[in-house]
Amino acid sequence: FIYYHQYQTLGLKNKVECSALDQDIRIVKLTGEVTDSSPMRLRMEQFVKSLQREIVSELEAIDGKKFQIDTWERAEGGDGISCVLQEGNVFEKAGVLVSVVYGQLPTAAVLQMKSRNKDLDPADGPFPFFASGISIVLHPHNPMAPTVHLNYRYFEIGNEDGTPRIWWFGGGSDLTPSYLFDEDATHFHRTLKGVCDKHDLSYYPKFKKWCDEYFYLKHRQEARGIGGIFFDDLDDKSPEELFKFVKDCGRGFLPSYIPILKRRKDMPFTNEEKKWQQLRRGRYVEFNLVWDRGTKFGLHTPGSRIESILASLPLTATWRYNHSPSANSSEERLVEVLKTPKDWI
Amino acid sequence: FIYYHQYQTLGLKNKVECSALDQDIRIVKLTGEVTDSSPMRLRMEQFVKSLQREIVSELEAIDGKKFQIDTWERAEGGDGISCVLQEGNVFEKAGVLVSVVYGQLPTAAVLQMKSRNKDLDPADGPFPFFASGISIVLHPHNPMAPTVHLNYRYFEIGNEDGTPRIWWFGGGSDLTPSYLFDEDATHFHRTLKGVCDKHDLSYYPKFKKWCDEYFYLKHRQEARGIGGIFFDDLDDKSPEELFKFVKDCGRGFLPSYIPILKRRKDMPFTNEEKKWQQLRRGRYVEFNLVWDRGTKFGLHTPGSRIESILASLPLTATWRYNHSPSANSSEERLVEVLKTPKDWI
Repeated sequence: FIYYHQYQTLGLKNKVECSALDQDIRIVKLTGEVTDSSPMRLRMEQFVKSLQREIVSELEAIDGKKFQIDTWERAEGGDGISCVLQEGNVFEKAGVLVSVVYGQLPTAAVLQMKSRNKDLDPADGPFPFFASGISIVLHPHNPMAPTVHLNYRYFEIGNEDGTPRIWWFGGGSDLTPSYLFDEDATHFHRTLKGVCDKHDLSYYPKFKKWCDEYFYLKHRQEARGIGGIFFDDLDDKSPEELFKFVKDCGRGFLPSYIPILKRRKDMPFTNEEKKWQQLRRGRYVEFNLVWDRGTKFGLHTPGSRIESILASLPLTATWRYNHSPSANSSEERLVEVLKTPKDWI
Repeated sequence: FIYYHQYQTLGLKNKVECSALDQDIRIVKLTGEVTDSSPMRLRMEQFVKSLQREIVSELEAIDGKKFQIDTWERAEGGDGISCVLQEGNVFEKAGVLVSVVYGQLPTAAVLQMKSRNKDLDPADGPFPFFASGISIVLHPHNPMAPTVHLNYRYFEIGNEDGTPRIWWFGGGSDLTPSYLFDEDATHFHRTLKGVCDKHDLSYYPKFKKWCDEYFYLKHRQEARGIGGIFFDDLDDKSPEELFKFVKDCGRGFLPSYIPILKRRKDMPFTNEEKKWQQLRRGRYVEFNLVWDRGTKFGLHTPGSRIESILASLPLTATWRYNHSPSANSSEERLVEVLKTPKDWI
């Protein structure tokens, strides 16, 4: 794909042919050169697309079934690659999606920026913007194997000459078990902390707390899962340093999750345990449809690709009226931990 | 239950023992007298509770399994009776719920009233309010048998002396098939039109359109089902006349739905048809969690009974990535009708 009009919109002069995951031959065609001195938006786009390939390929090796790959374009500017594996051998549903969206920032969004302490006067608009990111949600069949979520994104508002005026990174990764194995939670958090500590010792404690607060079902008064890290509006270091941090986070995904998955994916389980997993899937749906800002924003934005946004939902979910786990069961212990998030390291 | 503090809150002097569905003996204890000259709030409460009994009893006769009955109280004022039947012989999940809520209206709610053309100055508050209603959602097992929903409610804001200052009725009823039988849609709409026409010839066309507009998934650009009637803020006639209308609507529920259910509940169906029903159940969840004002209000209101609010959700639902029905199938025809609501009479 030649993304000429993208860079035109953003006021850039150069034409670049960008990375694209080809549905048939499954390789990247990168005919333009993206180097360390290219604009961050191109480097981030290249990074999320290459991370997507790496993760899709590893998950296919584990599952034995291939992902379905759809590329799409947004009429108002942008495109995406949605890789979804459904009813696999290991995964009930697995989505690994990247999107690149750009154009003129709507006034409503500018006003929202102001409340986020971003210094933009709507009267100075319209502003060209660019956003790119990667989203992953994996729902394994086995109720002993946790659901995992990852999202990393870069957002930029440009000047007339195409240089960034305001920019930030956001994202995180969190784990949602139906059955809680402490060693899994500890492994997951320890991996994330390792990545964070390499860049800033204040990051892990801050982003761990932020994650517990963000992935919270207020109406149930419980967390979605056992957390991980979450951050938004991150611009407290140079773009170069933060890009390195986000790349390390993204590359930390497979080491944080795959060892857990391998331990759990073939464990024996009962019908009752499968039923409990289905109830927890229902809570996942509740969080995503009722509270998740990204999902809500997407569903309320005309022109967004609904199937990509809702690829995060599990294949199956259950709502059982007034269910509560029996006393001293492992189901009850999970709920207790979700009601009072704990430290795992 | 003696609801003394209820009437104290509303500035009423009389103590009344109100109707309550007793979990064990399943009869109403109505020791206080509610007559045609009682305040509308008492008459509406009595009506929704008696309609609940009538409908629960009829549904139990059809299903062969008993409803689970829970009574609850709201610390801030109010109570409810939630009757839910789960994994029955005919119904996957059936909820018939009444609630009575009262207290002091929060300022945010008063401001919302203003936008609804209700003449209330927040500075004159706080205002005592009273709301009561009945909600029904029935999800049958058989994919040929449609889901049905009903809700009727009365809302009142009181003066210091306990007389109503502002009041209105709202509600409606609508049908959500997975497989479309025109004769069912026509029967359902004809029954509702019959009830409406007895009271006002303008009601059915107006409320039919309102229903199509309200039960609409904007992100999917399709209606939830084949509609019915919906209205809100109804105060265009005397309370007496509108109460009669709402009672007729409520009593019209069984005749509008039961003949359809009886025709469909034992029809043969394939695994593929069951799968399609599960996908449609997913859309039902999407509407209720993303768009339904009542559900959203409940989930964002501290102190509300979540299990009652979410009793409307199906027992099971599915999200299949990028599914689309095959050409010229009955599944495709349903989607076409949902995209362009039609007249059924």
